[in-house]
Amino acid sequence: MTDVTRQLARFIVDSRWGSIPKEIRHEAKRALLNWLGCALGGCHDPAVDTALGALREFAGPPQAVLLGRRERLDILNAALINAISSNVLDFDDTHLRTVIHPTVPVASALVALAEHTPATGAQLLHAFILGVEAECRIGIAVSPEHYNAGWHITATCGVFGAAAACGKLLKLDEQQMTWALGIAATQAAGLTEMLGSMTKCYNMGHAARNGLTAALLAAKNFTSSERGLEAPRGFAHVLSAQCDLNAIVDRLGATWELARNAYKPYPCGIVVHPVIDACLQLRGERSIAPAAIERIEMRVHPLVLKLTGNANPRNGLEAKLSVQHCAAAAFISGAAGVKEFTDACVHDPAVAALRARVAAREDAAVGKEAADVTVVLKGGASYNKYVPHATGSLERPLSDTDLETKFRALAEWGLSTCDAFDVIELIWSFDNVRDAAALARTTVPSAAAAAQAAR
Amino acid sequence: MTDVTRQLARFIVDSRWGSIPKEIRHEAKRALLNWLGCALGGCHDPAVDTALGALREFAGPPQAVLLGRRERLDILNAALINAISSNVLDFDDTHLRTVIHPTVPVASALVALAEHTPATGAQLLHAFILGVEAECRIGIAVSPEHYNAGWHITATCGVFGAAAACGKLLKLDEQQMTWALGIAATQAAGLTEMLGSMTKCYNMGHAARNGLTAALLAAKNFTSSERGLEAPRGFAHVLSAQCDLNAIVDRLGATWELARNAYKPYPCGIVVHPVIDACLQLRGERSIAPAAIERIEMRVHPLVLKLTGNANPRNGLEAKLSVQHCAAAAFISGAAGVKEFTDACVHDPAVAALRARVAAREDAAVGKEAADVTVVLKGGASYNKYVPHATGSLERPLSDTDLETKFRALAEWGLSTCDAFDVIELIWSFDNVRDAAALARTTVPSAAAAAQAAR
Repeated sequence: MTDVTRQLARFIVDSRWGSIPKEIRHEAKRALLNWLGCALGGCHDPAVDTALGALREFAGPPQAVLLGRRERLDILNAALINAISSNVLDFDDTHLRTVIHPTVPVASALVALAEHTPATGAQLLHAFILGVEAECRIGIAVSPEHYNAGWHITATCGVFGAAAACGKLLKLDEQQMTWALGIAATQAAGLTEMLGSMTKCYNMGHAARNGLTAALLAAKNFTSSERGLEAPRGFAHVLSAQCDLNAIVDRLGATWELARNAYKPYPCGIVVHPVIDACLQLRGERSIAPAAIERIEMRVHPLVLKLTGNANPRNGLEAKLSVQHCAAAAFISGAAGVKEFTDACVHDPAVAALRARVAAREDAAVGKEAADVTVVLKGGASYNKYVPHATGSLERPLSDTDLETKFRALAEWGLSTCDAFDVIELIWSFDNVRDAAALARTTVPSAAAAAQAAR
Repeated sequence: MTDVTRQLARFIVDSRWGSIPKEIRHEAKRALLNWLGCALGGCHDPAVDTALGALREFAGPPQAVLLGRRERLDILNAALINAISSNVLDFDDTHLRTVIHPTVPVASALVALAEHTPATGAQLLHAFILGVEAECRIGIAVSPEHYNAGWHITATCGVFGAAAACGKLLKLDEQQMTWALGIAATQAAGLTEMLGSMTKCYNMGHAARNGLTAALLAAKNFTSSERGLEAPRGFAHVLSAQCDLNAIVDRLGATWELARNAYKPYPCGIVVHPVIDACLQLRGERSIAPAAIERIEMRVHPLVLKLTGNANPRNGLEAKLSVQHCAAAAFISGAAGVKEFTDACVHDPAVAALRARVAAREDAAVGKEAADVTVVLKGGASYNKYVPHATGSLERPLSDTDLETKFRALAEWGLSTCDAFDVIELIWSFDNVRDAAALARTTVPSAAAAAQAAR
């Protein structure tokens, strides 16, 4: 494999909108709707405010919207901040095979660029689809060794996705696209060690900004290695103990990774989702009052307890990786949205009391994507629910309506003043939109609304 | 080693100027003089112009000087561009043990920041010394496996140096400095695959800008892992197959890596330097006319031929790694400066003709730092020169006067209109300078001079 980078570059440059299957075009809209909701929900998070407070005095002209906010920054800093906003709630999408959250780095860069480089909705969708394709294929090529070693794969592969997508929007030629991928390769960075701190989502911002930078540099013929992916000292060999470079170019254009993208119904670790499903179903079907519960028993795959067996989370962030909290909060609230992963919910006495009565047991006979939950009532009655695949999995994907509902809830959580109906309509018809910049702009609150929200 | 990051942070935060040995303070001035000359020589290179052309419309307010130029950009972009300028000629300093070029990422970030955050000359020198110390010790901890794997160590470790130095200037506390090192860790990137393209020096720019970003974020309490260096998924373990974390903290404050810094007399691969020394000495001592030379024979360590055995370089960049070109050009020009590594010199018929008559032979008996050169004249006479250690090595360091001469030559090469005498005086007395921003500003050409140079 001596010209993987160039083959990928050529594919991106030569791709025509007409060759993108209808269902992939629709999936791109679903991904953007989900991403934009996450951004509206997260855009006032302390991580966003802090990054903005640190960097805005060094930022350039007001070229691009900060999603959901009144401020505008240069497109590179807008890409950075929007990626933080849209990732901070841990509610964005997941390419399950690689654990990449594909939309954040690609869309954050692309939507900012579209405010500077005129593009139609279809052009943005097309570039987005290609960016996700590059990002996920590169991720597949280095999986699972790369992530297992400690690389934050959304960041390390996201920089390629952002470069590819932005390069497509900038109409790079094959040589320039090859360079853009090389400049992305040399910036690939991000450690999973940062999970649990603000820097977790800075990794996304870094990938978005740097991928866009790579495309902008290449557009001016800033040269790089032409073998950034496959060379012995290129990305794949240096950042992964094993790699399958063929995965990057095999059947390009015949398969689409966006078809394998999943959307979370709950903003927490995916392995906990079947447990939440079971709890919400039991609560709903049996009208169980939390006070009536003696204990919640569950059998889950050993991996679930390894990743999320934390009976005493100290804050909302830790609660996202606590199967005990998830079960208790779901029974108490009848929901598992952003609110159920706040510090306030973690410290709610009722939640804490029920959390202490959760008995989670590992059972290798239960699949990783399944859960078996039994609720035992004080009166002695018990009810069982087995969930083979969680809502939001590829087997049981969120419907378009589910995604609309999620978008509305996130916009409300972020106190967005945008008209959710209008945004949703804009996205479903985005391939017919003449100015792609409308997407970001529609999220900006009016001055009056912003003043009212600040009161 | 459970708190390496915090120990290093504490050392940087607690360090006092009075505890820095006199010879290290002086070495810092030598490093800055060498670095500034490189920047003046390189500031109009196509790599600089191209990067600036791509990024300036997105840059922030005119807060900081681009060394040797009239433009001013925000401090982050100034750090980026100045690092490209000062690295592009391959004439900057070398910490031989790690092959880190220590000054470029640290000084480029620091000097830009000093135009925004008021500092004295002594404060800048102090921060610079600490930044280099952090950068080189982290490099030692992961050497040689890290570089051998394909990591561009000046970039991957330079980001820590820039973060540490800028954090010191920003007066971060221990907690913030620990975060700054963590934010640096997650941005550590750069592949040696990029050598030979413009992106080689972009790696330096990326390190300078991102290190400064890390310090600015941490100053606002943007949180990161507190174990960015030593954690199982931290920098050292993820980016190196082997590491010695103790090297980062052992005898901190008792030894100084700046004492092991070397300055190049010739802008090409260091392993070729003894050959150039021998050629220049033979030419000078024997007044040998190039036309009289039958052939040039040399015996060198096998590594020299492995890295630089290229008898037919196609351009100036390749000539930097051609021992044959270096020998021929040195005999023709009586010098080996920036001019001898231009495309014009490579294609000079006289140089090409002599280059073809260079016979380089590997001999493991000759040390890596040595060379044995024999010039055979057409009349049959031959003269031999053995150089055990090249000029610029730690055994035969460039004197302060040598560094001044190098600075003047580089300023002249870059058509700088600054008064070299003034700049040199400023640097030698920099510990008494009240406003550290004077260093960058003194390199800016007057409007009249810039207009004249543009004619």
